Amino acid sequence: MEPVKIGLLGLGTVGGGTVTVLTRNAGEIERRAGRGIEIARAAAREYRAESIRGIERIGQIGDDAFAVVEDPEIQVIVELIGGYSPAKELVLRAIALGKHVVTANKALIARHGNEIFAAARDQGVMVGFEAAVAGGIPIIKALREGLAANHIEWIAGIINGTGNFILTEMRDKGRDFADVLKEAQQRGYAEADPTFDVEGIDAAHKLTILGSLAFGIPLQFERCYTEGISGIQAQDVAYAAELGYRIKHLGIARRCPEGIELRVHPTLIPHRRLIANVDGVMNAVLVKGDAVGPTLYYGAGAGALPTASAVVADLVDVVRALTTDPTNRVPHLAFQPDELHDTAVLTMDQVETAYYLRLMALDEPGVMARIASILGDHGISIEAIQQKEPGEGETHVPLVMLTRRVREGRMNDALAQIEALETVQGSVVRIRLETLAG
Amino acid sequence: MEPVKIGLLGLGTVGGGTVTVLTRNAGEIERRAGRGIEIARAAAREYRAESIRGIERIGQIGDDAFAVVEDPEIQVIVELIGGYSPAKELVLRAIALGKHVVTANKALIARHGNEIFAAARDQGVMVGFEAAVAGGIPIIKALREGLAANHIEWIAGIINGTGNFILTEMRDKGRDFADVLKEAQQRGYAEADPTFDVEGIDAAHKLTILGSLAFGIPLQFERCYTEGISGIQAQDVAYAAELGYRIKHLGIARRCPEGIELRVHPTLIPHRRLIANVDGVMNAVLVKGDAVGPTLYYGAGAGALPTASAVVADLVDVVRALTTDPTNRVPHLAFQPDELHDTAVLTMDQVETAYYLRLMALDEPGVMARIASILGDHGISIEAIQQKEPGEGETHVPLVMLTRRVREGRMNDALAQIEALETVQGSVVRIRLETLAG
Repeated sequence: MEPVKIGLLGLGTVGGGTVTVLTRNAGEIERRAGRGIEIARAAAREYRAESIRGIERIGQIGDDAFAVVEDPEIQVIVELIGGYSPAKELVLRAIALGKHVVTANKALIARHGNEIFAAARDQGVMVGFEAAVAGGIPIIKALREGLAANHIEWIAGIINGTGNFILTEMRDKGRDFADVLKEAQQRGYAEADPTFDVEGIDAAHKLTILGSLAFGIPLQFERCYTEGISGIQAQDVAYAAELGYRIKHLGIARRCPEGIELRVHPTLIPHRRLIANVDGVMNAVLVKGDAVGPTLYYGAGAGALPTASAVVADLVDVVRALTTDPTNRVPHLAFQPDELHDTAVLTMDQVETAYYLRLMALDEPGVMARIASILGDHGISIEAIQQKEPGEGETHVPLVMLTRRVREGRMNDALAQIEALETVQGSVVRIRLETLAG
Repeated sequence: MEPVKIGLLGLGTVGGGTVTVLTRNAGEIERRAGRGIEIARAAAREYRAESIRGIERIGQIGDDAFAVVEDPEIQVIVELIGGYSPAKELVLRAIALGKHVVTANKALIARHGNEIFAAARDQGVMVGFEAAVAGGIPIIKALREGLAANHIEWIAGIINGTGNFILTEMRDKGRDFADVLKEAQQRGYAEADPTFDVEGIDAAHKLTILGSLAFGIPLQFERCYTEGISGIQAQDVAYAAELGYRIKHLGIARRCPEGIELRVHPTLIPHRRLIANVDGVMNAVLVKGDAVGPTLYYGAGAGALPTASAVVADLVDVVRALTTDPTNRVPHLAFQPDELHDTAVLTMDQVETAYYLRLMALDEPGVMARIASILGDHGISIEAIQQKEPGEGETHVPLVMLTRRVREGRMNDALAQIEALETVQGSVVRIRLETLAG
């Protein structure tokens, strides 16, 4: 089947990331969507070609975004320019021409979403905006579909990575706001003009969208209360910690008997809550539904590839809708049935993991060295080793070890040799260890 | 438009929960789905009518599940019996009759999913199974749709609440496995025969499904390695903690150059990872995609209403597909456009929240009492109060307070009076506080 032809507006951070993801994962995306995605045209005022992997796959690059929108070959417009204008005009024109739209533009949706969605409805086209809130976290899909059974009671989100990075550094290192902001700007986490991030405007755009999805109200950004973190002082961060709280910049949408609360402000939350432990530039959204209870969605809220992940997910949604009959829209096992690969499932002998080991060894010189040497002979590196105190009158002591990653088959061989030692009592307790590092 | 008529097989925990959710949230679900859902028939061997809210909404209740499946009025079969047989025969018969199916049956999908999905594909019907993995967490939708742009590298999940409750209690209280298991059984978290939960079979069913969705491989439960937690000893939990780790019963699916790892076993993970802090009966799934990076999905993995939340989400998916044209399947703002309500957005004066307050007060008798009395006059309860040490040669000391929830308008009035006191220096620092309690 012919690939779906898309037109890309903007080749900045997210635009470049979208090209990279569509290139790098083209095969896998097609196995899922049932059809390829071709970037037929792109428009950008300026871009750094050398930093965009896959740029050679773009059919044609120009600087006229309206020309891309008007191109009758293009079925889907991906708007990654940002800002209100000309993004709004481009999106409305694409819709008028009967094209589907995918956008990452939270400001545009928060301010003009009601108008845009009404136009899309009239034209029977889709407008995807998963990337507009919390980057790569599929929170819009969760709210619109995954939690559709629930009466949503409230939402609380860390939905601005820059602000969360600043508050995390202030807490971890006792630093001042101004000091950390400067570092964030140097590291590229904060813009030269950080107002949108630190004063909560960016978060308010996103909260406006979440509030509508949760409560079935029109988008009304102008009614969202917004208070930034620039007034937070190091001593308040410290006092809050003493009391068992952390300060986070939260967007909160809550349903009350009298109406809806929509507010972005610094907030103390108990340090044992999972969301209180979301640190650095990461985002998380906590949603309380009456049936499901609290659920939390965590991930990268910004950045080229995470945001592109959401843009391309919306594209797959559009492609699936254009390609299959409605009841086969999403394949049962995510990939199209004829695209399932019979990749081997490994036996445990072949699996590589790290280990926690505990054994009872004779409390004598040379015993630990002998055990370490058996592990070494099997290519197993020891990360940590602790000999515990012997019990009253005991001749053997517990020896606890952490190892680096190794094939389980090798570990089994090594453990058989260790258990055969006369100086080792009983069998070795072995629990696998995973760092789950990103 | 006529409601969609569904037939419910099973009125146990999840079946009862599904009736309750469909009853309690009927209005909101219809506003989202665009059409009502009618439980035209149900079949159950035995059930406790008095404990099922909304049971009177079921058109007809009998004990013959096949009769429900055969009923030509029924468009969607909801299978909540569990186990392999007759669930498999019922589901296959429903598919053969061209009916859509929603099921929470992880064992059935893990063992017979390949056959069931092939039949569904031939008949052009949908089989929803969101409830089969991690209860109310929409992890299947996230993997199949939300993360469709990604090359998934690995998944690690706490996908059995019983096991996680036991390990959490063992760590928090230094208790033994057998001791905690007994309590879990008394509290209804664990079955009389706990084998499925504590030996990892239930988790292996779920991991089999997650692995297929992530990597595009057929379901192959028999190749999933399964090791339970019944051998975990209290001393290993303690030693792991000393080394900075927690032991969790993880399901891990990983893509390696040689093939796919599918394994369920106790695992040490660094205590600072978010997933290491998922405690009690809660579930969480951590997914690492090449574009999005790590994302985490957290919530209740079992229970009547959380599981029903996923069952009904699948029903809404089916209803939307049956009702609208594909491009309008999901309304942009979750609710059908003519179902948006213009609920008032509250001003901050109307918002109720708790507060952290800090002020500089004269270090003299009676000052704190005066402040407390102003707060009391405005109906503001003090939760905690701390007077800090004065700085060298300072006459004023920092006073830190936490309050209970109160309308912001009242707080503003109280703060104006406090700031007007001669004994208080400068303005009061005020940061809102939310407990985010479930």
